[in-house]
Amino acid sequence: MEKIGTFDFVTESYLLDFRGRVTVPMIGNYLLHCAGEHARQRGFGFNDMTQRSCAWVLSRIAIEMTEYPGMSETISIRTWVEEVGRLFTVRCFALYAGDGRNIGYARSIWAAIDMETRKPSDLTALGNLQEYITDEPCPIGKPGKIVPAESGTDGVPYRVKYSDLDVNGHFNSMKYIEHTLDLFDLAMFEEKEIARIEINYIAEGRYGMPLSLHKKEIAPGRFVTSVCDEEGKAICRSAVSWR
Amino acid sequence: MEKIGTFDFVTESYLLDFRGRVTVPMIGNYLLHCAGEHARQRGFGFNDMTQRSCAWVLSRIAIEMTEYPGMSETISIRTWVEEVGRLFTVRCFALYAGDGRNIGYARSIWAAIDMETRKPSDLTALGNLQEYITDEPCPIGKPGKIVPAESGTDGVPYRVKYSDLDVNGHFNSMKYIEHTLDLFDLAMFEEKEIARIEINYIAEGRYGMPLSLHKKEIAPGRFVTSVCDEEGKAICRSAVSWR
Repeated sequence: MEKIGTFDFVTESYLLDFRGRVTVPMIGNYLLHCAGEHARQRGFGFNDMTQRSCAWVLSRIAIEMTEYPGMSETISIRTWVEEVGRLFTVRCFALYAGDGRNIGYARSIWAAIDMETRKPSDLTALGNLQEYITDEPCPIGKPGKIVPAESGTDGVPYRVKYSDLDVNGHFNSMKYIEHTLDLFDLAMFEEKEIARIEINYIAEGRYGMPLSLHKKEIAPGRFVTSVCDEEGKAICRSAVSWR
Repeated sequence: MEKIGTFDFVTESYLLDFRGRVTVPMIGNYLLHCAGEHARQRGFGFNDMTQRSCAWVLSRIAIEMTEYPGMSETISIRTWVEEVGRLFTVRCFALYAGDGRNIGYARSIWAAIDMETRKPSDLTALGNLQEYITDEPCPIGKPGKIVPAESGTDGVPYRVKYSDLDVNGHFNSMKYIEHTLDLFDLAMFEEKEIARIEINYIAEGRYGMPLSLHKKEIAPGRFVTSVCDEEGKAICRSAVSWR
């Protein structure tokens, strides 16, 4: 089995935003699909993990796009494993337009949790995951720690709903991005586009949880956001840079 | 070109709800994909319509499911044109599991609007759309008029956000379903499943519009919902029957 997997998508009208561009959460869904398929083909997919009573958990992701595909365009995504540590594995992505031109990169950090103990599993004991590591370049910064947005800002209240939940019953990782983008005014999307978005998933969001969504501009066009629980603790933080 | 189109999908973990089942809005997205592809292959797709300065508008849809596929299951969807009138065309769908067993049907009613005048186009003048009509059976009731839910109920306030908008800048038709389902408590999804959902799209929802979402039980397990604008006029109504 090759180390790098390639997956092709064709954009569809009902997945585009009002500008006729693929949305960031949809790109995120494409990336998750590639991650899932690449892992499945190599024996580390959703079902393989369930059999080991484990589940993959996305810890951090950074996505940088130089352009956003429009209607009926082909997106080709290459994905590979960059690192395997005891607690975390790093998976990279490169995105290409139909003509082979690079349009973006992403880097994601994953843990595997034991579904009974909820504790992280040792990834180096997970069989031969390391065999797939390659040194393919992914020329974007790693997803790092994000400045808290919750201090000194008013939060927008939000309660976790049925449609926000993923298959594990937690707040869906791409739904966090959706709610984060909805904190920005439409004029922002009309005038600018997102150059880089980075998300830290800190704790699980559950059904009915009363959350507050915070946003703060830390430099011109650079924002941080936080999703906080009832006690004000961030369960998810993002950094969004506009171009 | 054959009259009936068949399209296959494989469900993916990140598109499932907390029960590990494909959601109704996602089934709606699959149906829209089939409608778009079936139309495109026959010269009536999104881009063909744009060239005629027209756009397809979903007016009503009814979906009946006898079961909801889980993780990594194949869904095969057949779609065809049932009727072509001057103002409306009826498109049907039949959904099958991987083993060929029928799992549901849907019937949708579409208009085409002129993108400049916003008036409906004459579908019988749209070339050879009628040639694709077949009498394939679709054994579910037509989407009809829905009892208003807004009288005598308190509405949940909601403001239209960036992620709610479709490529025409209007409230996305599947997002209406998402917000409608979110009016039900999670316990409902734990105990029951949706046997039939029917949606009437009445007027366009736009960015920033302050809406109110209403829900009313009209018989045991039978609900109607309305999405109303600031003046209390419904822009979308649904009927949801639980089993």
